[in-house]
This record gives sequence, structure tokens and C-alpha cells, in this order.
Amino acid sequence: MTDLDPKTDLVLERVVDVAPELVWKAWTTPEYLKRWFTPAPWKTVGCEIDLKPGGKFHTVMESPEGQQFPNTGCYLEIVPDRRLVWTGALRPGYRPANLGADVPFVFTAIIEIEPHEAGTKYTATVLHSTEDGRSKHEAMGFHHGWGAALDQLVALAKTW
Amino acid sequence: MTDLDPKTDLVLERVVDVAPELVWKAWTTPEYLKRWFTPAPWKTVGCEIDLKPGGKFHTVMESPEGQQFPNTGCYLEIVPDRRLVWTGALRPGYRPANLGADVPFVFTAIIEIEPHEAGTKYTATVLHSTEDGRSKHEAMGFHHGWGAALDQLVALAKTW
Repeated sequence: MTDLDPKTDLVLERVVDVAPELVWKAWTTPEYLKRWFTPAPWKTVGCEIDLKPGGKFHTVMESPEGQQFPNTGCYLEIVPDRRLVWTGALRPGYRPANLGADVPFVFTAIIEIEPHEAGTKYTATVLHSTEDGRSKHEAMGFHHGWGAALDQLVALAKTW
Repeated sequence: MTDLDPKTDLVLERVVDVAPELVWKAWTTPEYLKRWFTPAPWKTVGCEIDLKPGGKFHTVMESPEGQQFPNTGCYLEIVPDRRLVWTGALRPGYRPANLGADVPFVFTAIIEIEPHEAGTKYTATVLHSTEDGRSKHEAMGFHHGWGAALDQLVALAKTW
């Protein structure tokens, strides 16, 4: 589905034992997203979702020390229960983001949610502009972080 | 339709006496786009269009001295005969563009094509990340350039 370039992209692919509809619900409902999006002991303390192409995807992550990190991106594709794409390279309404020199990397995320006999085949593909951006994101713990967040998502979905 | 910010955005709005369908055809067909996209004596010598969200919009402009300027962007919204959105902040497939320090500005363009009793109400809204980007684009002759290109588009459409 996605043109992958291992030099610039990162992928987390897993089969999880919850239904696609629940994965979608966890990704697209602010009150639920806040409960899984950031691996503990970090928290997600803010979330705004305007679920349409060009709409706002805003989160605020909080470190264990209480420092807050807001992020605002723009949704690009919405296919209910199947596919969600957003980017940090654009602000809501598709305006190009003003990326200062202090921004280590910017990415576009493609979340693919496919029915699987065990539940859902989940693929998160993260596209960076450069190899350097991919390296920095990987070094920050992409695989562990996105994997731990997915574990939290699955645990939440199992309570539904 | 578009959240406009006069500090960072530029707008060309005109009523033209050709039908919306012809404006659309001129914007979305490479062989026609090459005939109007760049004000003479500049030329558009290359054009590739993959008309879908995430698809490629590529042009090559050529100066009167023969220097070529390729541009590659990514389509975001396609509403036939009515609305076309693309951005230079993303490469095809939504990958964030690698904008070097030598890129003076980056923009997202929203082309709105509305039926009008005289033909078409045409609105091109160009969103920049910063006031500085808008200023540079304006100083390069945005209004004259996009207006002259539209005149060429209308002249071409009248031959159809």
C-alpha cells in the first residue's frame, strides 16, 4: 500500500487480538486516545481530533517531571476502521508547518488496520524526509515506544 | 471555505468567461497544463500528474535563458470540476519534503472553481508557513504571475 524506503522510514507491524473497529475507536476518540497514546510513565494530557482531511490532530504529552510537549498535525486520509494518515509537515487546513532548526525530525504517519483471523493486522508506517530524521526517531526509541503504546491500546480495547 | 490569514496567505480571485469543466481540464491534463502554467516567455517543459490524494504533481519550468526549475508536490484533495489542493511541503505519498535552507518558501495551493453566471469564479489561495514566505512569494510577482498564467489558461480553454 505504501511506498516504503528503509533508509527514511520506520515500520511497526503487529497482529493484535482486538477487532479493527476497536483499534479505530482508540485512535479517533480523544478521551480514549489520551489513555494509551504515550507509554507510561509519560501521559497524554491533551487531545483534539477533527477527523477529516485537513482537520486538526493535536496532542499534549507530559513527561514524568511534568514538562508538556504539544504537537499539532493535519489529517490527510480517513478511511473508517481501515486507514488513518496524518502529518506534522502541515498545520490544520494544510498550511505548511514552520519547522524551526530545533525540530529534530518531522514525519507522516500511516496507520493501516486490516481484519485478521486473530483480530487485526496493525501496521504503522512513519515516513521521514531524510535518513537523519529516521535515525533520530529510531534512536529516541520508536520501536519500543510505539510498541508499548500499542500494548496500552490493546489493553484498553479489551475493556470494551 | 479556506481559513485565510492575510499575514501568511496570498489570494488571486477572478471571474473568467469559461466553464468550470474547462478550467479543471486545463489544471489536470499535463499536455494542456504545459501550455498555460508559466507566463511567457517562460515555458513549462515538463508535467506529470497523478490525480489522487497522495499523488504526484510535477512540473519543470524553463527560463528564457534555458535554465530548468523542477518542482514536485503532492496532491491533497481532488474534487472534480470544483477543488484542487496540493502542497510543496510533502513529496508524493505524503512524505515530508526535505526543504533545505536555500528554499525561500513553501506553499500549499487551493484552487476553487465555482460556477458563475459569467462562467467561473476562480479563487487560488496560497498558504505559506510564515509571513516571510508570503512576502518573498509576493515580491517574486505572485499576483502578476498567477494572473498572467490564468489569462493563458482562459485563452487556451476558449479554443476548445
